[in-house]
Amino acid sequence: MFNEIEIDVLKKRVYAANIKLYKYKLAIHTWGNVSGITKDRKYVIIKPSGVSYEEMKYSDMVVADLDNNVVDSKLKPSSDLPTHTLLYKTSDTIQGIVHTHSPYGVAWAQSGKNIPCLGTTHADNFYGSIPCARELNDQEINNNYEHNTGLVIIEKFKKENLKYTSTPGCLVKNHGPFTWSSKSPEDAVDIALTLEEIAKMAAYTLSINQNTKEISQSLKDCHYNRKHGKNSYYGQEKNADKNSEQKNKD
Amino acid sequence: MFNEIEIDVLKKRVYAANIKLYKYKLAIHTWGNVSGITKDRKYVIIKPSGVSYEEMKYSDMVVADLDNNVVDSKLKPSSDLPTHTLLYKTSDTIQGIVHTHSPYGVAWAQSGKNIPCLGTTHADNFYGSIPCARELNDQEINNNYEHNTGLVIIEKFKKENLKYTSTPGCLVKNHGPFTWSSKSPEDAVDIALTLEEIAKMAAYTLSINQNTKEISQSLKDCHYNRKHGKNSYYGQEKNADKNSEQKNKD
Amino acid sequence: MFNEIEIDVLKKRVYAANIKLYKYKLAIHTWGNVSGITKDRKYVIIKPSGVSYEEMKYSDMVVADLDNNVVDSKLKPSSDLPTHTLLYKTSDTIQGIVHTHSPYGVAWAQSGKNIPCLGTTHADNFYGSIPCARELNDQEINNNYEHNTGLVIIEKFKKENLKYTSTPGCLVKNHGPFTWSSKSPEDAVDIALTLEEIAKMAAYTLSINQNTKEISQSLKDCHYNRKHGKNSYYGQEKNADKNSEQKNKD
Amino acid sequence: MFNEIEIDVLKKRVYAANIKLYKYKLAIHTWGNVSGITKDRKYVIIKPSGVSYEEMKYSDMVVADLDNNVVDSKLKPSSDLPTHTLLYKTSDTIQGIVHTHSPYGVAWAQSGKNIPCLGTTHADNFYGSIPCARELNDQEINNNYEHNTGLVIIEKFKKENLKYTSTPGCLVKNHGPFTWSSKSPEDAVDIALTLEEIAKMAAYTLSINQNTKEISQSLKDCHYNRKHGKNSYYGQEKNADKNSEQKNKD
Repeated sequence: MFNEIEIDVLKKRVYAANIKLYKYKLAIHTWGNVSGITKDRKYVIIKPSGVSYEEMKYSDMVVADLDNNVVDSKLKPSSDLPTHTLLYKTSDTIQGIVHTHSPYGVAWAQSGKNIPCLGTTHADNFYGSIPCARELNDQEINNNYEHNTGLVIIEKFKKENLKYTSTPGCLVKNHGPFTWSSKSPEDAVDIALTLEEIAKMAAYTLSINQNTKEISQSLKDCHYNRKHGKNSYYGQEKNADKNSEQKNKD
Repeated sequence: MFNEIEIDVLKKRVYAANIKLYKYKLAIHTWGNVSGITKDRKYVIIKPSGVSYEEMKYSDMVVADLDNNVVDSKLKPSSDLPTHTLLYKTSDTIQGIVHTHSPYGVAWAQSGKNIPCLGTTHADNFYGSIPCARELNDQEINNNYEHNTGLVIIEKFKKENLKYTSTPGCLVKNHGPFTWSSKSPEDAVDIALTLEEIAKMAAYTLSINQNTKEISQSLKDCHYNRKHGKNSYYGQEKNADKNSEQKNKD
Repeated sequence: MFNEIEIDVLKKRVYAANIKLYKYKLAIHTWGNVSGITKDRKYVIIKPSGVSYEEMKYSDMVVADLDNNVVDSKLKPSSDLPTHTLLYKTSDTIQGIVHTHSPYGVAWAQSGKNIPCLGTTHADNFYGSIPCARELNDQEINNNYEHNTGLVIIEKFKKENLKYTSTPGCLVKNHGPFTWSSKSPEDAVDIALTLEEIAKMAAYTLSINQNTKEISQSLKDCHYNRKHGKNSYYGQEKNADKNSEQKNKD
Repeated sequence: MFNEIEIDVLKKRVYAANIKLYKYKLAIHTWGNVSGITKDRKYVIIKPSGVSYEEMKYSDMVVADLDNNVVDSKLKPSSDLPTHTLLYKTSDTIQGIVHTHSPYGVAWAQSGKNIPCLGTTHADNFYGSIPCARELNDQEINNNYEHNTGLVIIEKFKKENLKYTSTPGCLVKNHGPFTWSSKSPEDAVDIALTLEEIAKMAAYTLSINQNTKEISQSLKDCHYNRKHGKNSYYGQEKNADKNSEQKNKD
């Protein structure tokens, strides 16, 4: 049915990524989850629902298919699984997904605003604003809520012509942040920390000067490309997502 | 007079819950207390007054009856004991109570405002606003202050037709938060941490967008019921407080 | 000349109190100092100037007389010594003094405002506002700066008829907080932490509701007396400073 | 070509200073770098680009000359190297340089404002405001970006007649803080922590009282000179940078 060794390794990695979420203080209680996907993009490994980070074991990780059927676990998967699977199906560049209730990310989501690109810390990591998807209407809330949460993210990315590689995360209004990575589940957690830090800096900035404007297009391009573009020169080797904009099918 | 084994176990649990309060950084110095109640609802175990978390031993926990008489201890109970006992007598769903001076909870209490339900983090845990009970008048302050602190909480819950199960906490104006749990003292501490996190997120949100509105009734229902309703699907087993709304006698 | 054993014990206690300052995160680098006084009120033990908490040894503590002469040390005392000695001479209830640059305490001092009494956390610990002494004029800055820093505190206490026991601390405008204790240097550090927490809560409160008012006189009296008054009932034994208001000579 | 022992010692010190940056929580991920310079001012040691603090070894430190040529390393230097080298060439008082994305420093940089001198914590460490250099224009962004980042700092210092010794740091608009030290790389990290703390206090202060004014010139002089002037009396020995204002060639 599936490659047991690959699944076992991925369970360990997804487990470690979930623990990292906790260690980074991006989630208290059970308020966050990380998933990864197999190479054939048939199976997703995700945190079990409502299990605390301190009690969780790697073998508790749940294996599900992309139709949200659990294929290997005694435990129930995170209730957010349908949001994860929909995103994996939408962009095959996504290798790991994180959902948190980190405080500044949530605050921007609750405020219903995109996080504007106010500086190079942001531009190094997200190309343009961090989008905030609209709130769900009553019908979307009452039927397939988690699936519809994924749909408003996709709607936002289509409407604003965003790429899942250069915009590796999205807020959902009244809810909180989702991030993903074209590299790995672990990297998606690093991006979740990055999003929280950028969200915090943006809130601080507006409290100092509420008229702060977005940075210039040139500066956005310069910093994003310095790290992620074709001619990137940040870091030690060819960046894995260097050509990801071209590969991105959306 | 009472079941010594049950009391001893409960002392250990209430002690551990008080230590957790400190570990969660919800209280500095001696600024917080946790209590639990025996199954027959005749005795309350509570932190001793003014003893630091670092010096406290489990055997220091004070046993009192519901009329605030100490029945087993050399130490004096927390001065807030009459608030605890009144709440235990008011709702027999309450199994543990916490009082803290956690900073964002206190800030909302000092501002005299209910914490509005601005997102799903809140809706997952409290059904509707976190209420802020009115300030005590001079007479209430000068006679039986701690008992009257309990009374304004009860008054608020009656007036707004709130349930102690779905609204597991209350602010008291100019004072701070009280939380409780229908499960255990340990869970009441988890709810105290939740309240502080929600209070923080709400303050951040208003600083970003002071016109933020409460979320829709549908979203409140969806998230609260996902975790606590009859058809809850969050977590690994039937939730202990699943039918608690029906059981709640208030 | 002096009681060597008492001095040695006091050096250890003042050293430990300075370390506690650092552990509580009330001071980074060398930005804070604690002092204690001998029973005969002839000698003050204080942190050496500009020595980091991590490198400091108990034997580095400096012994000085109340005229700011070093009587036992190879090291120079904290440059704030003249502020400390003046306060010790002004009220013989003071047993330990702390000066920090803790961030919220400094922010209120820089804003030039008293910290208003907005709730019971404050009322439990300070009777009325935490005062902010005026800024020094050019002449006071240019001659005997540290001595004059003590003088503006004393001026503020006289003008507003404050007691050093029930108001165990003061901000100095544009500078930061000083706290003291009628018990010990260690307790003065606990009060410095209390002041920082109250300052933080007051800032949060005003950011939530900028029209927040001070609490009633009854509530101030109730909470302060519950912990410190003649009929105090908080804590385990007769409070050491219970009659201190009567003893206070200022 | 160069003194191998000096280089090796400096590598260890620059490595330790980079780790200190992380320990002080001034940088998450790889968001900060520290450099040092040899005594003959011919070689700079700097953190490698994009290597995490946890994985980094002292031998990974990169040796480059002042024209940004790597002279000893398999790894690429921090992409900010041209900013560092330009500053070293501009003032021979500079012995170590730090660049961070610490959150309050970044927030002030993003707001485009100098950090005003609101109190003695600031005055003890920076003589006057912490300057914020202008944003780069499109041409400056698109060609030699990092070199031009250094140029706007230098332009700001010339325009406002600032000294690199008494103003040991600068914000760059939309980017973040750079700090330096006339003593050592380690001290430049201490100054980076100082800048973050001052930036935080200034933001808190304005949130409490948005009309807060800068302190008087007398108080600025008093505090700066108490620590750094000719007649400084803070600390235990003649301050290494005591005469640095005279030596400063800029």
